Amino acid sequence: MSNSMGTMFRITSFGESHGTCVGVVVDGCPAGLEMGVDDVQPELDRRRPGQSDVSTSRREEDRVELLSGVFKGRTTGSPICMLVWNRDRDSSGYERRRLTPRPGHADWTAHVRYGGFNDYRGGGRFSGRITAGFVMAGAIAKKLLMETLSVEVLAHTVEIGGIQARKLDPSEICMNREGSPLRCCDPEASERMVQALKAASSQGDSLGGAVSCVAFNVPLGLGAPVFDTLEGDIAKALFAIPAVKAVEFGLGTGFSSIRGSESNDAFTVNGGEIATETNRMGGVLGGISSGAPITCRVTFKPTPSIGGAQRTVNISTREETTIAIEGRHDPCVVPRAVPVVESMVAIALADHAMRSGLIRSVLEEG
Amino acid sequence: MSNSMGTMFRITSFGESHGTCVGVVVDGCPAGLEMGVDDVQPELDRRRPGQSDVSTSRREEDRVELLSGVFKGRTTGSPICMLVWNRDRDSSGYERRRLTPRPGHADWTAHVRYGGFNDYRGGGRFSGRITAGFVMAGAIAKKLLMETLSVEVLAHTVEIGGIQARKLDPSEICMNREGSPLRCCDPEASERMVQALKAASSQGDSLGGAVSCVAFNVPLGLGAPVFDTLEGDIAKALFAIPAVKAVEFGLGTGFSSIRGSESNDAFTVNGGEIATETNRMGGVLGGISSGAPITCRVTFKPTPSIGGAQRTVNISTREETTIAIEGRHDPCVVPRAVPVVESMVAIALADHAMRSGLIRSVLEEG
Amino acid sequence: MSNSMGTMFRITSFGESHGTCVGVVVDGCPAGLEMGVDDVQPELDRRRPGQSDVSTSRREEDRVELLSGVFKGRTTGSPICMLVWNRDRDSSGYERRRLTPRPGHADWTAHVRYGGFNDYRGGGRFSGRITAGFVMAGAIAKKLLMETLSVEVLAHTVEIGGIQARKLDPSEICMNREGSPLRCCDPEASERMVQALKAASSQGDSLGGAVSCVAFNVPLGLGAPVFDTLEGDIAKALFAIPAVKAVEFGLGTGFSSIRGSESNDAFTVNGGEIATETNRMGGVLGGISSGAPITCRVTFKPTPSIGGAQRTVNISTREETTIAIEGRHDPCVVPRAVPVVESMVAIALADHAMRSGLIRSVLEEG
Amino acid sequence: MSNSMGTMFRITSFGESHGTCVGVVVDGCPAGLEMGVDDVQPELDRRRPGQSDVSTSRREEDRVELLSGVFKGRTTGSPICMLVWNRDRDSSGYERRRLTPRPGHADWTAHVRYGGFNDYRGGGRFSGRITAGFVMAGAIAKKLLMETLSVEVLAHTVEIGGIQARKLDPSEICMNREGSPLRCCDPEASERMVQALKAASSQGDSLGGAVSCVAFNVPLGLGAPVFDTLEGDIAKALFAIPAVKAVEFGLGTGFSSIRGSESNDAFTVNGGEIATETNRMGGVLGGISSGAPITCRVTFKPTPSIGGAQRTVNISTREETTIAIEGRHDPCVVPRAVPVVESMVAIALADHAMRSGLIRSVLEEG
Repeated sequence: MSNSMGTMFRITSFGESHGTCVGVVVDGCPAGLEMGVDDVQPELDRRRPGQSDVSTSRREEDRVELLSGVFKGRTTGSPICMLVWNRDRDSSGYERRRLTPRPGHADWTAHVRYGGFNDYRGGGRFSGRITAGFVMAGAIAKKLLMETLSVEVLAHTVEIGGIQARKLDPSEICMNREGSPLRCCDPEASERMVQALKAASSQGDSLGGAVSCVAFNVPLGLGAPVFDTLEGDIAKALFAIPAVKAVEFGLGTGFSSIRGSESNDAFTVNGGEIATETNRMGGVLGGISSGAPITCRVTFKPTPSIGGAQRTVNISTREETTIAIEGRHDPCVVPRAVPVVESMVAIALADHAMRSGLIRSVLEEG
Repeated sequence: MSNSMGTMFRITSFGESHGTCVGVVVDGCPAGLEMGVDDVQPELDRRRPGQSDVSTSRREEDRVELLSGVFKGRTTGSPICMLVWNRDRDSSGYERRRLTPRPGHADWTAHVRYGGFNDYRGGGRFSGRITAGFVMAGAIAKKLLMETLSVEVLAHTVEIGGIQARKLDPSEICMNREGSPLRCCDPEASERMVQALKAASSQGDSLGGAVSCVAFNVPLGLGAPVFDTLEGDIAKALFAIPAVKAVEFGLGTGFSSIRGSESNDAFTVNGGEIATETNRMGGVLGGISSGAPITCRVTFKPTPSIGGAQRTVNISTREETTIAIEGRHDPCVVPRAVPVVESMVAIALADHAMRSGLIRSVLEEG
Repeated sequence: MSNSMGTMFRITSFGESHGTCVGVVVDGCPAGLEMGVDDVQPELDRRRPGQSDVSTSRREEDRVELLSGVFKGRTTGSPICMLVWNRDRDSSGYERRRLTPRPGHADWTAHVRYGGFNDYRGGGRFSGRITAGFVMAGAIAKKLLMETLSVEVLAHTVEIGGIQARKLDPSEICMNREGSPLRCCDPEASERMVQALKAASSQGDSLGGAVSCVAFNVPLGLGAPVFDTLEGDIAKALFAIPAVKAVEFGLGTGFSSIRGSESNDAFTVNGGEIATETNRMGGVLGGISSGAPITCRVTFKPTPSIGGAQRTVNISTREETTIAIEGRHDPCVVPRAVPVVESMVAIALADHAMRSGLIRSVLEEG
Repeated sequence: MSNSMGTMFRITSFGESHGTCVGVVVDGCPAGLEMGVDDVQPELDRRRPGQSDVSTSRREEDRVELLSGVFKGRTTGSPICMLVWNRDRDSSGYERRRLTPRPGHADWTAHVRYGGFNDYRGGGRFSGRITAGFVMAGAIAKKLLMETLSVEVLAHTVEIGGIQARKLDPSEICMNREGSPLRCCDPEASERMVQALKAASSQGDSLGGAVSCVAFNVPLGLGAPVFDTLEGDIAKALFAIPAVKAVEFGLGTGFSSIRGSESNDAFTVNGGEIATETNRMGGVLGGISSGAPITCRVTFKPTPSIGGAQRTVNISTREETTIAIEGRHDPCVVPRAVPVVESMVAIALADHAMRSGLIRSVLEEG
């Protein structure tokens, strides 16, 4: 069904924005991985609202509750259920405008799909808040990948409102990232993005943007043709994040304007190992990892909740009307989406690593 | 596993480029759909090699064999197995260069992933020829969607080697498409693309490009959050096509440089029905169809097989060497990929239409 | 993975016997079904420990918490997470005997399978307590089947320790069932079973038994060949209940000693409808429901926890030793398994009813 | 969907009894397994019709065609498609009686399920002939299990028409099995079964029976709780065989009349390894293999096709009528089902062995 993903490392999502909680069940994590709330909480904190003055003022502590699957500080091989309780819920606005779907949101499609029975408060099941569950699962996937294969998954903001960060060498990603309120590794671009966000925000508007993600140390030979390709499974995982509208690997859309002699990565021998000289392909050939870092770029549409007046209709009377969405919204989802992108890539990689047999179902003790 | 896709309308792919055949099993197609080889062959013919002078000269008739699941001219509800036999196989070059992986191809990753046991002839399981199976399955999905929901899926070439077709109104797609050897609806751009292809080809090089796809008449309310979104499932299906490196919906990567007021589609009432005024979102909101046409753009990397010398290594001796790939290759995969893109989108939509209950498991008779 | 089951109506189980909680996520339940804790709690109460003097004295209130997927008293189409908290945990014995696996239990196989990282307290993930989650999910499945198709699933105890209830007409099932502490509809046999249980219990022993289950009003035409047959999917669901060792449909093992003329159900016309005269097949032909009640019989092994001395080994020293399991155990799992059997049958039927299109993804309002 | 089974070792079945062919696609078989038609044909020959005078006279050579996934005598890791062509088809009787469903067959349920579009000739998709595909896939699973884990799966006839073979020590299974036309290891019982079959046959009747199956050398620790238990997945696989009505493990239905002290298998140390002294549980504890042989028993209903007159109805006129089924049918399906049972058990075990990581996705070379 729609709320589970993965074959061997499998997550099941549940919860609504203004319901009791948001949670996730991780099934298939190998036994023996050291695990506790301290492994998950820091990732949740990176996604938490209210981290900067260009973020929503909704106050959620988002303390992870670890309900199953961990015993004596280690995973047991049983399903791991985790959740965060919803506390700072203000659903009043949603009751008032429930008959006037917000443009750019799923209000109308959800209403039709679920016969009007959907929980519309705060976007319900379609809220970005659902990604708290993705991040909890992602924290486990990231730790599993790091402990077993030394794989590290790092994302960063590369564009907001048309302002692009300069091209980075992978080694530059770590350094500056968490120093920027937007998780942009280019300090100069970051500063301009902040200004653009404040300008848009003050005009009751919002901005789109893009996140780049790199997975380092992914071993050669992970993935498969033909349907469960690395690209296909990573892309599917990324499109589960609300507001994602494009996913690219390697040179991405840039491939359409170049020649084969400019796109192929030549093979060479590097320390006795066969490797590609360049990495235009984004670390994947034939759906299988090439040993080079896996690189992808994810485009987010502007936050659909904007203060300016928008045309909509009353779904009961079918009369046209307008809506202006006051409330506590990020003017751009990209900065808080950075850990979510990392999580989804890590979850897809963990699943493939287990399917390929590169991670066993029981981890050896030290 | 990796060679099946879909939940209710499910396809299983098999076969290799230089093996006995390439085929597909379609499971879950409703009973009662009129079906015969004449419904499948025309789609295969659109994908067939050798259709123009900018296409490979491999001669494959690609006559579909319909082996099961059809009785008295209609589908029975049982799995439909279809295949095309491979005939014009010339594997000599592959034996000769089996130790020197071709840059941009899956030769090396496949070798590692399958321990050297993979069928390397013609790319084996990684060949574009595998998409003959996708197209056979797609022919059934397209007919099913048309007969039950009047959904039509149309793709066309929009860019080759940096030459872009002008923006088209959807109504213009049908008209000019099959008149162009490249399936480009803009005759002027098509002509320039042909010249660019001939130039690249004569220089032993190849070109990348892009295909746009539109699905018309997709009913409102098809799809679901959170993992099996329409975008996620369509993207995953598209990444199964060899050489695809980016998938975008609606404005796609363009969303990163605009504002919410420029990206949201206002709601209006149109003939009593609620609809969006514009379609920047590409017909999907919250993973669910909005009633507007579903639009996506697929970027293909340049054909990796090029005549010019490329650096590679001998996987046995680990010595560096060069390779020049003579042989029968399309200088750009895009024109023949057009029906494949349509097929993958149709297959994903058919699956979702069945999951959403919009297509029943038995079709009523006339 | 191992902790999810179903295609369209899908459940995911989590929790351990002596962990924080035991729970379940139900994904795919149609929107619009009236639902609240009052629909689930009565089923949990039927499974709860301590209902009679032939049941464990573990005291668990087992109050269901409904965490997601229900809004304004109805299902929303989103995943429904439910759990019961564990309270009356006494894990002391398990720490003491963790190196001496209990015969008939999964202690040893779990230890090997999960590298010694499994939560061994109270059987952990292998405990009968896990079925609390099955029963919560089953309560939803049962209500869904009843509201949409008038399907009713009723199980009852038919054998304990070799004492068999007399053959019952289906109409007799309801009447006496809940009046018996063992959920046996034959009062005379029930009384003898109670005596047998007390005798075994007083001798530090336990008894096996069997449950029969009937699903009434299952519409003709539900199910499918070849792998996801009704029998196959129901059987798989039933084998998820700890201690189940055999599943039979219709005449079951009795088929091996009769002739075709004695086993075939003749067709007749009944009120204008085609029906079988008899129901030896248990309501299934070719994996598809025939319109007759679906009947199955489930055999449970004796509770493996017995007070008498049993030979076992120390897994650390590999020395042979003995174990006597004091503690709070049902001398026979069958009486409390009755609602669990109903739940698993209902879950499998709900999934097939949705797959066959007999239950839509949105229920119409009255 | 209904025609695929398995998670890591996955089979997809296609074809009809009187269609063009019957086939199977095996996806997920590791690369590097020596494989050729000679590995598959002997198993097909064991299932082939016309092996004895108590078997149907339909003449099918059933020569396997190996269409993909094998290269240079080894599996490649790609899907393996295999089929047998149907040749000796006589569909005349089926056209004549298509409006009068045969009791005990799926004619009527299939008609309703598929809206009358099903291929009714020879039972179509519901025919025992479909199991030719199971046996081809089973041949691969059996070889894979033997080569990697030395697992051997052996079934034999233990009951026909109430005549039971004497209890056998596992070592006796191999010796006499193929010497009996019924694959019964007890020569004396076999002789009586032959007489019973001839008697039933001469009276236009048929007999039910049972097959026992043992899997030797299954390594400890294969399988999982809670839904994908070994028992559950084996049972589901077995119920895909037409005419199977009961599946038991270990003492099976016998557990309902014994005590815990009689059913638990004590642990002991055997050559330094922990093992059970007895094997009442059938080699499975908590859904996980215990290291003891896995034992199950499968009950088959009598062949529903019998020559005697049976009451049925005309589905068009709804009038009651009778039917007598002349034609070429086995009076008991059990003897030819023996290799099918082995196949289904082997397929389920191969899948679990791969999921548990006990079989890798690439086999090492010698």
